Amino acid sequence: MEALQQAGVWLEAECGGQGTCATCAVQIQDGRVLWQESRLLSPEQIEEGYVQSCQATVQSNITVMIPETAQSASDRGYIPDIAADEDIALGLEPSPLSRKMVVQIEEGILRKGGSDLQSIARDFPPSQDISWTLSPLKGLPKVAHGDATEATITVVNQDCGRSVIRIESGDTTGRHYGMACDIGTTTVALKLVDLNSGRTLEKASAYNGQMECGADVISRIIYSQKSGGLQDLHKRVLRTINRLLNMVLTKRGILPDEIVSAVFSGNTTMTHLLLGINPKYVREEPYNPAVTMVPMLAGNDLGLHVNRDAVIFLSPCVGSYVGGDITAGVLYTRHHRSHRGVALFIDIGTNGELVVMGDDWMIGCACSAGPAFEGVGIKCGMRAATGAIEGVTVKDQGDKVDFQVIGGGKPRGLCGSGLIELVAELFKNGVIGRDGKIAMDGKAGRIRSVRNQRSLVVAAAEATATGKDIVITEQDIANLMRAKAAIYSACALLLKNVGLTMSDIERVYVAGGFGSHLNFKNAVMIGLLPDIGLEKYEYLGNTSLSGAHLALISKSHRDKLLQIARSMTYIDLSSEPGYMDMYTAALFLPHTDVSLFPSLA
Amino acid sequence: MEALQQAGVWLEAECGGQGTCATCAVQIQDGRVLWQESRLLSPEQIEEGYVQSCQATVQSNITVMIPETAQSASDRGYIPDIAADEDIALGLEPSPLSRKMVVQIEEGILRKGGSDLQSIARDFPPSQDISWTLSPLKGLPKVAHGDATEATITVVNQDCGRSVIRIESGDTTGRHYGMACDIGTTTVALKLVDLNSGRTLEKASAYNGQMECGADVISRIIYSQKSGGLQDLHKRVLRTINRLLNMVLTKRGILPDEIVSAVFSGNTTMTHLLLGINPKYVREEPYNPAVTMVPMLAGNDLGLHVNRDAVIFLSPCVGSYVGGDITAGVLYTRHHRSHRGVALFIDIGTNGELVVMGDDWMIGCACSAGPAFEGVGIKCGMRAATGAIEGVTVKDQGDKVDFQVIGGGKPRGLCGSGLIELVAELFKNGVIGRDGKIAMDGKAGRIRSVRNQRSLVVAAAEATATGKDIVITEQDIANLMRAKAAIYSACALLLKNVGLTMSDIERVYVAGGFGSHLNFKNAVMIGLLPDIGLEKYEYLGNTSLSGAHLALISKSHRDKLLQIARSMTYIDLSSEPGYMDMYTAALFLPHTDVSLFPSLA
Repeated sequence: MEALQQAGVWLEAECGGQGTCATCAVQIQDGRVLWQESRLLSPEQIEEGYVQSCQATVQSNITVMIPETAQSASDRGYIPDIAADEDIALGLEPSPLSRKMVVQIEEGILRKGGSDLQSIARDFPPSQDISWTLSPLKGLPKVAHGDATEATITVVNQDCGRSVIRIESGDTTGRHYGMACDIGTTTVALKLVDLNSGRTLEKASAYNGQMECGADVISRIIYSQKSGGLQDLHKRVLRTINRLLNMVLTKRGILPDEIVSAVFSGNTTMTHLLLGINPKYVREEPYNPAVTMVPMLAGNDLGLHVNRDAVIFLSPCVGSYVGGDITAGVLYTRHHRSHRGVALFIDIGTNGELVVMGDDWMIGCACSAGPAFEGVGIKCGMRAATGAIEGVTVKDQGDKVDFQVIGGGKPRGLCGSGLIELVAELFKNGVIGRDGKIAMDGKAGRIRSVRNQRSLVVAAAEATATGKDIVITEQDIANLMRAKAAIYSACALLLKNVGLTMSDIERVYVAGGFGSHLNFKNAVMIGLLPDIGLEKYEYLGNTSLSGAHLALISKSHRDKLLQIARSMTYIDLSSEPGYMDMYTAALFLPHTDVSLFPSLA
Repeated sequence: MEALQQAGVWLEAECGGQGTCATCAVQIQDGRVLWQESRLLSPEQIEEGYVQSCQATVQSNITVMIPETAQSASDRGYIPDIAADEDIALGLEPSPLSRKMVVQIEEGILRKGGSDLQSIARDFPPSQDISWTLSPLKGLPKVAHGDATEATITVVNQDCGRSVIRIESGDTTGRHYGMACDIGTTTVALKLVDLNSGRTLEKASAYNGQMECGADVISRIIYSQKSGGLQDLHKRVLRTINRLLNMVLTKRGILPDEIVSAVFSGNTTMTHLLLGINPKYVREEPYNPAVTMVPMLAGNDLGLHVNRDAVIFLSPCVGSYVGGDITAGVLYTRHHRSHRGVALFIDIGTNGELVVMGDDWMIGCACSAGPAFEGVGIKCGMRAATGAIEGVTVKDQGDKVDFQVIGGGKPRGLCGSGLIELVAELFKNGVIGRDGKIAMDGKAGRIRSVRNQRSLVVAAAEATATGKDIVITEQDIANLMRAKAAIYSACALLLKNVGLTMSDIERVYVAGGFGSHLNFKNAVMIGLLPDIGLEKYEYLGNTSLSGAHLALISKSHRDKLLQIARSMTYIDLSSEPGYMDMYTAALFLPHTDVSLFPSLA
């Protein structure tokens, strides 16, 4: 695995290279490696020369075939997410963190006395109010003595005062770009935004390059405590972001230097790792992170492929487990919602975060769901991107399975919404029982059994884009059930804490990296979401990214975002004694207590 | 020369590698080089295998001996300048650009909720008034969760607002350091300053590493227009500064990170090159530099070996040829002087700058003197450092020469003050005539003649530290005369411009990198300074460095410095038609018009 990494090939490694999963298996075609056979690989794989790359020691020059399943998703190519959000900028007068302004240069330059700086920047002199960074000073002679009679300067707002960060010849106010970026534990999603209109120009997403270092925030924090681990994690997420950036910039013919402001939203650990700040105390009593409200920084501070003086705004965190992704998500939700009254916001990701809010109060908590909803830890799982099965219908007791694929075409795997729908359909059809085990054999040969574990073929090899069966295993179903139980029990406990019941909730806003049509009926059927009436549910997609977008283009939304972080009350579920019992009770389909799900009766 | 530079060996090259001087001559001991013999080398040198390294092409592996005379002065080791300035901080309550403050951490860290940042920085929260850089954020976890119950934060003042740039465990307010640095065209001088007391801890100086690229600002500007030239010059001066810094820091056991503020003063071209800004337009009509009042920058912007967020203040320039060294020099002069009335300030360096000032007005000009006063372009010249002959007495018509050496011991060369005194003494004794030519043969064998050029042995090989004769040549004398003529005629023209005469001047303050006792009588005798009464003269040493020191430690002096730059009127001598005539008239000892020097009669 190290040799592959040195060669620039990044593998999936859910366990972080501990040897306890086999997602990093590769086929040795030539040469010698030393390794101990593992039960995690099938006899066929072992026969074909597969090894767990994290457990194999290279002993000669070798030739390796990397199966597509092992390739890091971040290397499989970047496929824009599908989500309608072009209404974000509607009705907003853009007031980004950066401004471009035209200044006349002709006159001043020819006048004797003074400097180019004094001539060009007479309206923006270095002063108590405006500072200049070095880059535009370096650019002055060429701009001042070139052919153009006007120049464009870019001014950014910082925590205190403003700063001139760029100077260009001519009027370039038409080219004014920023980026919004959601840093998820599993997935990084990014938007290139036209700051003049506030509208999205390009979107892209990829698995977080930190995936190889562990699947959830706790394993990332543990990894960060290794020698060089923190720096490694910082570089990995940065590489993911910069790759996505380069892709969208190249596509649009925009230079990194032209990105002059950026907003990031991520959970508290992701925020620390982006900044290269040790997240150790996020998970140690009394669970105070190093930073929650992060000062504005510069592009160069982080090593981003943007203007070195670009202003970087980080969505503020509330506590160790309610981060900037949630404050941004709440920002977008409040911007979006027309309904008043008590609302529940649920962001379903690797961590599940829940916020109950009234018009002037809000309280939040977090739970660890694991990355199943993002397609990780699922045998044929994948992100909600082109080729993902996002919807499923099961008939004939499991013998007939129909599905919809994002982007049409042949399927490559199952994304979160497809997985939920598949399990719900299998449950509804009696193919799986309340314990999540496959309960029948079927007649169509879809049900298979390997070493006491059963699986069902969703799409046979000849019908898939990978040429391999797309299956769901009992292990996948168990992973999904743990994830849904974590979310449901967190929801129940949060409401209990504020003295509310499920029925008090008038509206539920669901966020997460699902496919575009999460089927709430199915989500309720598997017990992920409370059974309080489907009409109350609304799916908002990646609200962290949408909130970051709002903050990028609007001053009033940046102010609101900070206000949300300041006013949110944070409940620590891990210190609530009842949580484990409620979690265990939710580890059935839909729940041990079926009376909680009356509509399913 | 390029091969040597790549190997890290820097040679003197007064002509900037054009082949027109022979200071870069080295001896080829083995191997083949291609080059054309040059008249600039003596037949003995050619016999011994010497070549001009800038003109020789390497054709095989070669072994080269680098004579001490060719070694770049910046490689010969750094010798602290000798100048008494410890009174600078006297009576000043330090108010530097940076402040260190102790904060209590114990309590906040144990309290649940919030972040380390909120706990530690409750008095300095990121806000409209205070920003934080990334470095102290990264330092937070270790400091907050360490054993110490208090921490020290460093806050710097920037153009707008303040910024927290550093956090340390415990109370480290006793360690608070800054640097002042004069960047001369020929010599860089630096002080390490204790910002608590305002006093100098260490001083060091060295030839500017740009020397190899030309001796004066004009040749530097020309060099900067070559491909890569600007970046090369920027890196060279940076290397000189960082070397000096490393030396003084190592000596005192201070870390680069502990240098949290710095003030630089240099002429306008040096200021541009330090910043990496193209100085091209300094010497093109209408002679407006890119910047004069430079915004505050960060250590990292320049690549200085100081704290990456250290605040960098540059002494403001007035115009293309009156720079930050002069405003700093005037600042120190006005701080120092007790006398009121019309004063003349003369900074004698590679450029000569003159300022005439009253109590509430000042007018300045500049002339190109060349680097002779700094020991460059003089066969046995050197800086005013240990081993330099700084005082000379000539007797017996040149047959007997006594001298004083800086630091005692055997002499290594002649510094500016020694050169002035030597020429004055030789003139007084009739050894040289009014045209600067050696007029007699002497009896002691001190006078020699090679190819129609005469020279005088000041110290014979057996009495020197180099084991070679220290001589003065007619060429050296001619260089000195050009330099003194430039200064004297600039002085005459400046006074004429403001309607004053020499006799209106009540006090003359002389600055420059001479030895500590510049003999004004001799300076007047050779016609460098006007003959207006020795009691009016005062030598202030490196006023640029002293002014930078004042600005480093005092807010009111920074304000005064900016006020000086704003209020100084600048006269451009190059556009004055009478200047060349006055210059030519001054190319004699002491002058063509001896009536201007009544005391010499």
